[in-house]
Amino acid sequence: MIQQMRLFLEPRSIALVGASRRTGDGNNVFENLKVYGFPGKLYPVNPRAEEILGERAYPSVSDIPEVPDLALISTPRASVPQMVGECVAKGIKAIIIVAQGLADADDEGRRLQEEAVRIAREGGARLLGPNTFGTANAFCHLNTAFIFFPMEKVPVASISQSGFLFGGTPRQRLVGKAIDLGNSGDIGFTEALEYFGADPDIKVIVLYVESIRNGRQFLEVARRVAEKKPIIALKGGVTPLGAEAAQSHTGSLTGRNEVYEAAFRQCGIIQAGDVDELEDLVVSFLHLPVLRGRRLGVMTITMGAGVLAADACARHGMELASLSSRTRAKLAELLPPWLGASNPVDLGPSAFTPWGSKEVMRQSLEALLTDPGVDAVLLVVSTNPMEVRDITAVTAPAVEAHPEKPVVSWVYNTDIGEEISARYRNAGKMVVYLTLGRAMKALSRVAGYWERRNRADGP
Amino acid sequence: MIQQMRLFLEPRSIALVGASRRTGDGNNVFENLKVYGFPGKLYPVNPRAEEILGERAYPSVSDIPEVPDLALISTPRASVPQMVGECVAKGIKAIIIVAQGLADADDEGRRLQEEAVRIAREGGARLLGPNTFGTANAFCHLNTAFIFFPMEKVPVASISQSGFLFGGTPRQRLVGKAIDLGNSGDIGFTEALEYFGADPDIKVIVLYVESIRNGRQFLEVARRVAEKKPIIALKGGVTPLGAEAAQSHTGSLTGRNEVYEAAFRQCGIIQAGDVDELEDLVVSFLHLPVLRGRRLGVMTITMGAGVLAADACARHGMELASLSSRTRAKLAELLPPWLGASNPVDLGPSAFTPWGSKEVMRQSLEALLTDPGVDAVLLVVSTNPMEVRDITAVTAPAVEAHPEKPVVSWVYNTDIGEEISARYRNAGKMVVYLTLGRAMKALSRVAGYWERRNRADGP
Repeated sequence: MIQQMRLFLEPRSIALVGASRRTGDGNNVFENLKVYGFPGKLYPVNPRAEEILGERAYPSVSDIPEVPDLALISTPRASVPQMVGECVAKGIKAIIIVAQGLADADDEGRRLQEEAVRIAREGGARLLGPNTFGTANAFCHLNTAFIFFPMEKVPVASISQSGFLFGGTPRQRLVGKAIDLGNSGDIGFTEALEYFGADPDIKVIVLYVESIRNGRQFLEVARRVAEKKPIIALKGGVTPLGAEAAQSHTGSLTGRNEVYEAAFRQCGIIQAGDVDELEDLVVSFLHLPVLRGRRLGVMTITMGAGVLAADACARHGMELASLSSRTRAKLAELLPPWLGASNPVDLGPSAFTPWGSKEVMRQSLEALLTDPGVDAVLLVVSTNPMEVRDITAVTAPAVEAHPEKPVVSWVYNTDIGEEISARYRNAGKMVVYLTLGRAMKALSRVAGYWERRNRADGP
Repeated sequence: MIQQMRLFLEPRSIALVGASRRTGDGNNVFENLKVYGFPGKLYPVNPRAEEILGERAYPSVSDIPEVPDLALISTPRASVPQMVGECVAKGIKAIIIVAQGLADADDEGRRLQEEAVRIAREGGARLLGPNTFGTANAFCHLNTAFIFFPMEKVPVASISQSGFLFGGTPRQRLVGKAIDLGNSGDIGFTEALEYFGADPDIKVIVLYVESIRNGRQFLEVARRVAEKKPIIALKGGVTPLGAEAAQSHTGSLTGRNEVYEAAFRQCGIIQAGDVDELEDLVVSFLHLPVLRGRRLGVMTITMGAGVLAADACARHGMELASLSSRTRAKLAELLPPWLGASNPVDLGPSAFTPWGSKEVMRQSLEALLTDPGVDAVLLVVSTNPMEVRDITAVTAPAVEAHPEKPVVSWVYNTDIGEEISARYRNAGKMVVYLTLGRAMKALSRVAGYWERRNRADGP
């Protein structure tokens, strides 16, 4: 099966059945694939076009001079079974059906979808979709979606029952390879997960799930893959309202949420509560070293935020580290006597003075990271009065000197867009979270993943 | 009391006791007040300086040629009682004590604080602090903090036991007036809340609370004020870890969280779970029309997000509106037959095509807003392929035609910094939330506030 999945993700040639003659607006797959720089051969098929973008168009699949690895069928639903038949007759083994309005719509659509699947299977072909963007693989300059998504070679794969995660996680577009299962008429989560589980380019896998069939088989594959790489799942349709919406979306019967929760937990899949938590987890797994425990050192420039950090810590199952006497002594040297050398570390008024802050912050961070009782450090800062470059210049040396310990930050007083987050990550070796709660939640889930891995690898 | 509070927020003259000679680094209050354009008279007091910034410095408060409205004492803790005594002797009735290391530190600090409070009260003066930035009032170009905070005339007041909310809500700085209670040695939440409750410049009040004394009096004032304007409270120290941190912060005994929760609910204060929810609520109350019910119309360009929106709706106590037959008929005209004219409205593939999307989106929004069964609309969009200006150009006419109904948005695929949010708000008349969950949570809390107000105003 993995070999056949490769035809979807690494095709050398693609037949574009129902290729549009309309170009120039970013909605032409043929044109988009050229812009992505897809290096393989493309065969636009359209009986009403002689050529598209100056290249020869073929009246039908049978006229293509080779057997393409992959066919992308973009015709209306009524013609889908016939087109699948023509692809199968040609000997094509991987077929994507883009059309909506199949099992996601009505009985007639369901009938058409079932017929297409039957024809494909009888011919030894596999189907992706219907109701799908298809596949994307930035490593191969491939993206079959009918809108243009800029993608980068990020070691994250998404498997999604929606176009929603296809172009990447929403904010940072952290997806390098993607499979949109759509209605999952044939190929489902199991096949896709198995494929990415074995893919050396991929370090983290994200799922958007409405419903999973063949649960036992899926869980078996998921358990095996989760021992090698984190799998993060977002479940849609967890409430009755959402379940109803899911049914009209992909014709999915979502099943009871508790069943999914239990199944995910059992096989080591991390369930994200929403798409933002999903993104936080991806960033954390991509950019943080292994988190070896839950004992957090917190440094803050304002103790109000320190109190909130302690609350968030307790709420999300993290702990405030008990500092060693050596660390306390070091902090006592650095801080005014009334602040006390406890955790959270209140950098106090010195944090607001350009002449005092940097050295205090640098040495406090070094002291916390040196403490064997501290598993990770959270730095609560604002960009007033210090700029990003000041903060990262102060923190980077200590962070680099302790590459085995995660250092994360909540920068509370400013818009931390992806640009600023990237600057922290690149210059300061820190992962920045948008909110305090999200920082703690992500750390706690990451810690849980490594605890499970350690138990599995255990003595 | 309100009259005396005015001396803190609208002083005509200020004595700066312990004014620093160090200037030019943004940490000199005297200098900062000049930069803010404070129009009143400033009297720097420093026995070791003849002049500061070219202006005459006074050796002691007694040498000032008038009785200033307000004194700001920035000397170390040991001298605080003496300085308060000198201010009282001068006849000053409003005194801010900046120093840390009083009741927030140790027994000696507590003693010094109590002595200062006693001296002030005997002289008919009120104290703010210690351990405080003091007060800010953008309407009067006043800010007594020892770091520079740019502020705007926003009709939001903060009352905070920390410098944390002093410069505004973290992301958007939505505070026009602020009181930092610090250790609350004398002035507490009750006095501050009463003042802002009566202040016609202020529409929304935010609190950062570690502990409140004189609970009964506070609740009485809060109940009265909450009937006129929303009060949003963030409580620090709601977990044992947080409570411990709070004690070292402001010497607060935070008390049991459930007691606060019940008390806030009882008097109509909206308790925010974190600082981001607090900010969402401020934005919502500032920029949305009255939300008259919980029946939400949802429009989405991707039904995966529609499913998640339905889930979030159910989770946070909102409802999906049942669309009228007229609305359904209108949507059926606009959308392909297989999408179905239900709520969430799936704008479908047309949403991704520049030639189809705008008209479909515009007319769908108009249809939802016209439906009497829809109280508000959530628009789920991405900035790919439509730009902000395209989206706002499409939505603004319908939003403007229905000024009585809130229209909010979740723009899922991009960094929505404050700049983009402001563009939506200004050009599109929409409030944009950073995440779907936050959008639903904020709408639900806002709905709850108006339900309470309606009951109170009821027949």
